Amino acid sequence: MFDRYLNDDKLNEECGVFGIYLKKCSEISRLVYFGLVTLQHRGQESAGIAVYKDGKIQYYKDMGLVREVFNDNILKRLDGDIAIGHVRYSTTGESYISNAQPLVVHYKGGAIALAHNGNLVNADKIRSKLEDNGCIFQTSIDSEVIANLIAKYYKLGYKEAIIRASKEIKGAFALAIICEGKLIGVRDPNGLRPLCIGKLGDGYILASESCALHVVGAEYIRDVKPGEIVIIDDNGIQSVIYDEFSKRALCSFEFVYFARPDSVLDGQSVYKSRIEAGRILAREHPVDADIVMSVPDSGTVAAIGYAEESKIPFREGLLKNKYLGRTFIQPDQKIRELMVKLKLSVLRENVEGKRLVLIDDSIVRGTTSKRIIDMLRRAGAKQVHVRVSSPPVKYSCYFGIDTPTRKQLIGATHSVEEIRKAIGADSLGYLSVEGLLKSINMTSEKLCTACFSGNYPMKVPESGNKYLFEKR
Amino acid sequence: MFDRYLNDDKLNEECGVFGIYLKKCSEISRLVYFGLVTLQHRGQESAGIAVYKDGKIQYYKDMGLVREVFNDNILKRLDGDIAIGHVRYSTTGESYISNAQPLVVHYKGGAIALAHNGNLVNADKIRSKLEDNGCIFQTSIDSEVIANLIAKYYKLGYKEAIIRASKEIKGAFALAIICEGKLIGVRDPNGLRPLCIGKLGDGYILASESCALHVVGAEYIRDVKPGEIVIIDDNGIQSVIYDEFSKRALCSFEFVYFARPDSVLDGQSVYKSRIEAGRILAREHPVDADIVMSVPDSGTVAAIGYAEESKIPFREGLLKNKYLGRTFIQPDQKIRELMVKLKLSVLRENVEGKRLVLIDDSIVRGTTSKRIIDMLRRAGAKQVHVRVSSPPVKYSCYFGIDTPTRKQLIGATHSVEEIRKAIGADSLGYLSVEGLLKSINMTSEKLCTACFSGNYPMKVPESGNKYLFEKR
Amino acid sequence: MFDRYLNDDKLNEECGVFGIYLKKCSEISRLVYFGLVTLQHRGQESAGIAVYKDGKIQYYKDMGLVREVFNDNILKRLDGDIAIGHVRYSTTGESYISNAQPLVVHYKGGAIALAHNGNLVNADKIRSKLEDNGCIFQTSIDSEVIANLIAKYYKLGYKEAIIRASKEIKGAFALAIICEGKLIGVRDPNGLRPLCIGKLGDGYILASESCALHVVGAEYIRDVKPGEIVIIDDNGIQSVIYDEFSKRALCSFEFVYFARPDSVLDGQSVYKSRIEAGRILAREHPVDADIVMSVPDSGTVAAIGYAEESKIPFREGLLKNKYLGRTFIQPDQKIRELMVKLKLSVLRENVEGKRLVLIDDSIVRGTTSKRIIDMLRRAGAKQVHVRVSSPPVKYSCYFGIDTPTRKQLIGATHSVEEIRKAIGADSLGYLSVEGLLKSINMTSEKLCTACFSGNYPMKVPESGNKYLFEKR
Amino acid sequence: MFDRYLNDDKLNEECGVFGIYLKKCSEISRLVYFGLVTLQHRGQESAGIAVYKDGKIQYYKDMGLVREVFNDNILKRLDGDIAIGHVRYSTTGESYISNAQPLVVHYKGGAIALAHNGNLVNADKIRSKLEDNGCIFQTSIDSEVIANLIAKYYKLGYKEAIIRASKEIKGAFALAIICEGKLIGVRDPNGLRPLCIGKLGDGYILASESCALHVVGAEYIRDVKPGEIVIIDDNGIQSVIYDEFSKRALCSFEFVYFARPDSVLDGQSVYKSRIEAGRILAREHPVDADIVMSVPDSGTVAAIGYAEESKIPFREGLLKNKYLGRTFIQPDQKIRELMVKLKLSVLRENVEGKRLVLIDDSIVRGTTSKRIIDMLRRAGAKQVHVRVSSPPVKYSCYFGIDTPTRKQLIGATHSVEEIRKAIGADSLGYLSVEGLLKSINMTSEKLCTACFSGNYPMKVPESGNKYLFEKR
Repeated sequence: MFDRYLNDDKLNEECGVFGIYLKKCSEISRLVYFGLVTLQHRGQESAGIAVYKDGKIQYYKDMGLVREVFNDNILKRLDGDIAIGHVRYSTTGESYISNAQPLVVHYKGGAIALAHNGNLVNADKIRSKLEDNGCIFQTSIDSEVIANLIAKYYKLGYKEAIIRASKEIKGAFALAIICEGKLIGVRDPNGLRPLCIGKLGDGYILASESCALHVVGAEYIRDVKPGEIVIIDDNGIQSVIYDEFSKRALCSFEFVYFARPDSVLDGQSVYKSRIEAGRILAREHPVDADIVMSVPDSGTVAAIGYAEESKIPFREGLLKNKYLGRTFIQPDQKIRELMVKLKLSVLRENVEGKRLVLIDDSIVRGTTSKRIIDMLRRAGAKQVHVRVSSPPVKYSCYFGIDTPTRKQLIGATHSVEEIRKAIGADSLGYLSVEGLLKSINMTSEKLCTACFSGNYPMKVPESGNKYLFEKR
Repeated sequence: MFDRYLNDDKLNEECGVFGIYLKKCSEISRLVYFGLVTLQHRGQESAGIAVYKDGKIQYYKDMGLVREVFNDNILKRLDGDIAIGHVRYSTTGESYISNAQPLVVHYKGGAIALAHNGNLVNADKIRSKLEDNGCIFQTSIDSEVIANLIAKYYKLGYKEAIIRASKEIKGAFALAIICEGKLIGVRDPNGLRPLCIGKLGDGYILASESCALHVVGAEYIRDVKPGEIVIIDDNGIQSVIYDEFSKRALCSFEFVYFARPDSVLDGQSVYKSRIEAGRILAREHPVDADIVMSVPDSGTVAAIGYAEESKIPFREGLLKNKYLGRTFIQPDQKIRELMVKLKLSVLRENVEGKRLVLIDDSIVRGTTSKRIIDMLRRAGAKQVHVRVSSPPVKYSCYFGIDTPTRKQLIGATHSVEEIRKAIGADSLGYLSVEGLLKSINMTSEKLCTACFSGNYPMKVPESGNKYLFEKR
Repeated sequence: MFDRYLNDDKLNEECGVFGIYLKKCSEISRLVYFGLVTLQHRGQESAGIAVYKDGKIQYYKDMGLVREVFNDNILKRLDGDIAIGHVRYSTTGESYISNAQPLVVHYKGGAIALAHNGNLVNADKIRSKLEDNGCIFQTSIDSEVIANLIAKYYKLGYKEAIIRASKEIKGAFALAIICEGKLIGVRDPNGLRPLCIGKLGDGYILASESCALHVVGAEYIRDVKPGEIVIIDDNGIQSVIYDEFSKRALCSFEFVYFARPDSVLDGQSVYKSRIEAGRILAREHPVDADIVMSVPDSGTVAAIGYAEESKIPFREGLLKNKYLGRTFIQPDQKIRELMVKLKLSVLRENVEGKRLVLIDDSIVRGTTSKRIIDMLRRAGAKQVHVRVSSPPVKYSCYFGIDTPTRKQLIGATHSVEEIRKAIGADSLGYLSVEGLLKSINMTSEKLCTACFSGNYPMKVPESGNKYLFEKR
Repeated sequence: MFDRYLNDDKLNEECGVFGIYLKKCSEISRLVYFGLVTLQHRGQESAGIAVYKDGKIQYYKDMGLVREVFNDNILKRLDGDIAIGHVRYSTTGESYISNAQPLVVHYKGGAIALAHNGNLVNADKIRSKLEDNGCIFQTSIDSEVIANLIAKYYKLGYKEAIIRASKEIKGAFALAIICEGKLIGVRDPNGLRPLCIGKLGDGYILASESCALHVVGAEYIRDVKPGEIVIIDDNGIQSVIYDEFSKRALCSFEFVYFARPDSVLDGQSVYKSRIEAGRILAREHPVDADIVMSVPDSGTVAAIGYAEESKIPFREGLLKNKYLGRTFIQPDQKIRELMVKLKLSVLRENVEGKRLVLIDDSIVRGTTSKRIIDMLRRAGAKQVHVRVSSPPVKYSCYFGIDTPTRKQLIGATHSVEEIRKAIGADSLGYLSVEGLLKSINMTSEKLCTACFSGNYPMKVPESGNKYLFEKR
């Protein structure tokens, strides 16, 4: 996996979900397909779609990109009135088809399909309790716990079952569920993972990000509220608030890196927040230089903001080869160093003899930063000033982001000056946590900044247990 | 599916299972692979292998032939001390990867892998009861019911749990299970599906048919007894008889068509029984003819027996093209009739101007028989006398064989004379049930002949419920 | 290549050709597809189809079996009034798509498509001469020489060009050509390779074997004569005899092994010749035994003949696994011996304690014979008497059959008694050359028996130059 | 082909070539692979590599992207001291493997491998003459004509043969050739297509663009001169000027769109020329607006230049989905309009209520421009001022660029004002030809601007004959 090789210096989102309730649309699975392609940046490992028709649920899922998993024939067979879809990024090196979603299960009340973005922190405890009662588990995903809880409470009616299940699970979850002819959206009490609602004709859409609404021609209505369950059927949207007292804590890294710039999360434009982050970064860490450039593509928006604020012109200094896929030849040891050159080329024109401000959105391990700075210096850069449009990542995430252990986080083990030396920069400046909050235009009362600050919005497991399910 | 198109006139076995317990063998999954390739005739839809190592179970399964599903890299990763494998034929047109086996589940006691050949008749009732307790089901295979039962009784210890589960389920089941570091074989009380034990070095093998023992170099020891559980570990084989009062009822169709001729089932050679069936058929339905020929390949052994007994020379009259795979172009309507010619060619030399005895092992719908007889007549056959080395198939099977509904069974709806007319034969003779029993050298006390006689060895569901699980 | 591993003890045909002239048939490429599938036994390495429509030639060819190379979309695009097809077996380990046929070339007169079965003995000389005049060659197949010769003589008109080319080339060639809106068949003066003509509606078929006529519903008319060119268009068949003085020398190995048993070559049934070979073999080398069995599938017909003549019953003693494809896992050295067991299983019933007559059609290197006899002895065979339904192969073929060098031919380097010892048989008997001629019902004046006798029908190159083109 | 659907409004380069002469490098084909991946933007239809070792040439080519065509095993087999590679874009909808390059041919003197970027204008005449002498052609690429000419003149020695062939052919050609143990580069007398030389250790590289030198670690030495042949072997580079009187005419569209921005062609930085084009465009067509944005990715560099000059801030207004591959589902007619949304999303933040300057590098048919402007207006753009960083494309190219017929070129059939109306822009401004020349920093004496001006550097065929070879 060549991409993974170069992207090991980025954090990875685990999932994206999409749901649609639309009668008399012969193309429902195509719309989900389009939505998933638009959410593909949230997970590239597996993709799946489940559709509901006449009381039955059909589904198809496989490893691979959305465009690799589905084709016309498969989509044609997935006909129905309600559909949900899922893209997944695995947090482990080994990944299995059985962990792909949506999860479709049969219980006494019928069938349920469930797509989950996020990570539960008490899945192992609930699982253990369920196993005491003879439940079996066929996957290593915590989402299976949710399905079992709903089944357990089924006798109380589907609505009460989902409410109870939602109250019992702790952690991050944005869910799209098909159950009893309804499309149901659930967002965790903290609102850690985003989930929004759109309107398309007589129907409705649920999506992890608003960008996926536009692509299918839907209008954005509002975000699902933290602690809210929305139940969509022919009568429209019914809202159930199952928790209204938890602290709001939307993941701030969605703004830094995960979300697409054309999305709006809980009312805030991602693009705008990145431009602002660049501007504030310029004010917090100014430098005298010739050119502002970015590590493409994720640092570009902040770089434009930095350039505007600093009046230093923005230019492209690194060019990304777009013809490299995920499958790739194995390089011989001798020419392994050529690999980074293949992915990123230096635009000498803008580098040679220049003092550069290099904008990156984040530094996780620092290895890629070092390689890039080396390349720039070999291409004649006079100075390389690294500016990072987020604070140092110092703490692991337990809410659905794939962070390495703390030992591997360069921000957790090194001071800024030590990091500067390690990556070989002339100077290094990170955006402050306050600057980040300001760029997102929200207070710390509404955002989760745990990976920067260690202030988790709830009790988290000890790190040894983090991937309990994955390690089985 | 070209093969299915021509084979719709045959019954289809549902599954084959294979298990191995062998320490310090770096090639255990390769041995399972070889075993499954040898059992491939029992199921061509999906294949899977699960291996146990250091308390963990890994598995890989996918749609396709064994040789298509596995490759060197996958087999290398499936390393361990215990392994089971499964090949499956689906009873429905739609088939899903999630229904492939082995089924691997996690329960309170750990992980269990299970491979099942057969069909339960009370799966829906047990499932319903389990669902009452909040169990969820992720597949449409009845084998999931067995795993849930074992989990339910887990507190009693794995052995007692398997005994209880085995007693609770009704129907046909030959199981290979990995559980708590043991390889376990279970055969239903009637012994409907075959299962035998072999020895390989210090280790042991379980297999649906003895032919799969030889291919890995193992020695045949004995068959698992009806109503027996065998538990294999470093201490050798431990036997638990959980039911000793049920009537023995090994499926007689295994001898007619399913099993490989080089297998020995419950002490009886399949090849020999087919030769004998041919001989008895010759005595029951003699005819004056020039040549005995078969519908290849399944009718050939009986044809040789018929020829020997009747002294009419055996010759090949139909040639099967071995280069046709399962994927195939869609023929235009106009040339659809060419398809049967492509699969089977007439050897005119042996047909033109000849009075033929055409031996087939069974007739299910009669459509292919008609096509073949037409071909033979167009090639100049003077007479075509059809002899079938089994009795008319008149009743549906509930024990793991894919039979059409009774309405589609030509033997259920037509008299022999009507069938003769329908397929266009000059004469038609079926082997009698007595003749079949005699050919297998077992009495009706030991065999199931329900598909011919309607005498089911246990109460069976009404036909409407037969594929309850598949239809969800 | 698993098949190749086990088949290295057989000779390999190089090619099969098929041609059709049929106006207003919307399915012409499908008919070629069916013909090629039926000729697939003559070559499994690559397949190709070229069609002619409105003065243009389109084609598609690739490595693989016919069913792997073509699909509905490709066939639909190959629309036209005239079509030729080709299947190829490579004589070298390395094989390239560029060597696949039909060969389509553009010359002054237009375009020509050419499919060739056979091998030229003077290709290198002609090629060298053509190169002197500045011709370039893009493949390593000798068929390219033929196309160049036709182009060279083009000014004389297409008919004269083909006549001159046919006269200039020496060796074995059965050609199907599309040129100037005509379908043209050419057979070499000795008739070494077979080629026959069929009629389908208003159109005509050319095929290497008659079995390919029947599959598309065509009637056999006659064989193309040695030294004849047939030109097919709306006016029917025009015949040009360009050489009538050469000795007839149809390849006798076509009867022994290559051709399908349901084909008739130059008036002689292949099936009948094999039955006869078995009968004569029984008279030439009688033996007291319990069972006659064959090495499947190629020895079976002769075995039936041997059994009939000797009155010893024919039984199957070896079972071939039909689920093994060409791609296969790499066995570890330790279990490599399992491979032969996987492909061929012993039917112990018919082997244990028995005195066997084992019929094989030919022995090339002797390695597989030894493995099979070992298997039979381990399964308890009391005696194994090998009978071969052709004479010892002692000489290399230069006419399109892939024979190893003489050093590797066990028949060239060992006496019959030495071979018997080498393969471990109790006795060994080969059919005599006279017996072979008699079985085919032709005199030595009409057949090539060079591989047995060394009597080549023409001067052949020294063996060092045999694969000149392939070795470039 | 989804990409093609959206890119039909761009011109397409036909090819890229790469060559390497490097002894004792065990990884030579990997280096070519890296070079071709870097040149992939010049052709995505087919890819091929030919290597020379011990007097023999081996090659591999297939349809697809470089990363799809090659894998480790194939590269390992392509071992040698000299290698050339080629990526190709087809000018026709139908494309065949037989047209892939490098072309490898055998002639009297041995073997030659040839990779060609460009298009000949007298290929048909030469071909016709060669056919008069009996030459045959197996592909529809004009490069085959070059190989035949070299073979024709072979007797004069390889050097003289290449000189004569280079003089005889007219049009655009940058060639990389392997012949008699040498790597040879040839550039046409006008220098229409670029070709440069690099040094890597003791060896040398030839490449269509300098970006491919850097990726393998080579140093740029110089460009091959128009009318020059360079012969590379152990003695270094030998230069032969075979034509020094032709007008220089490097393709100006290389700077506008084809070449990668990090390449330097004939001494001029592509990136710099695009920034300049943007600046000059701002001076030629100023406008009062809020934001400068580009049609990604090709318009971005010029947009940055325009923004700098105009002082209007550059922002991203359109986001390209990078997860769309070339294979894609077929949209239903009703939702076809969703496709463009899937590929390009509007960043409403930067569009809504804004007066936009939209920079595109060129407009060919105008269809995509219209779709994008519609999207921007629906997203609330107040004004859309289109600025194109090249002059209107009015004339077809005969030198290796895939231009539609003049009828389809909106610049040839419409005035600027008509185009503005057709695409729905508020205003429209094209860079002038003078501005383009200035941006490239070359005079019209050194550049070909024929597609803008109609001033072809040589006589061109009538348009009817343009794709003569392709249409056969």
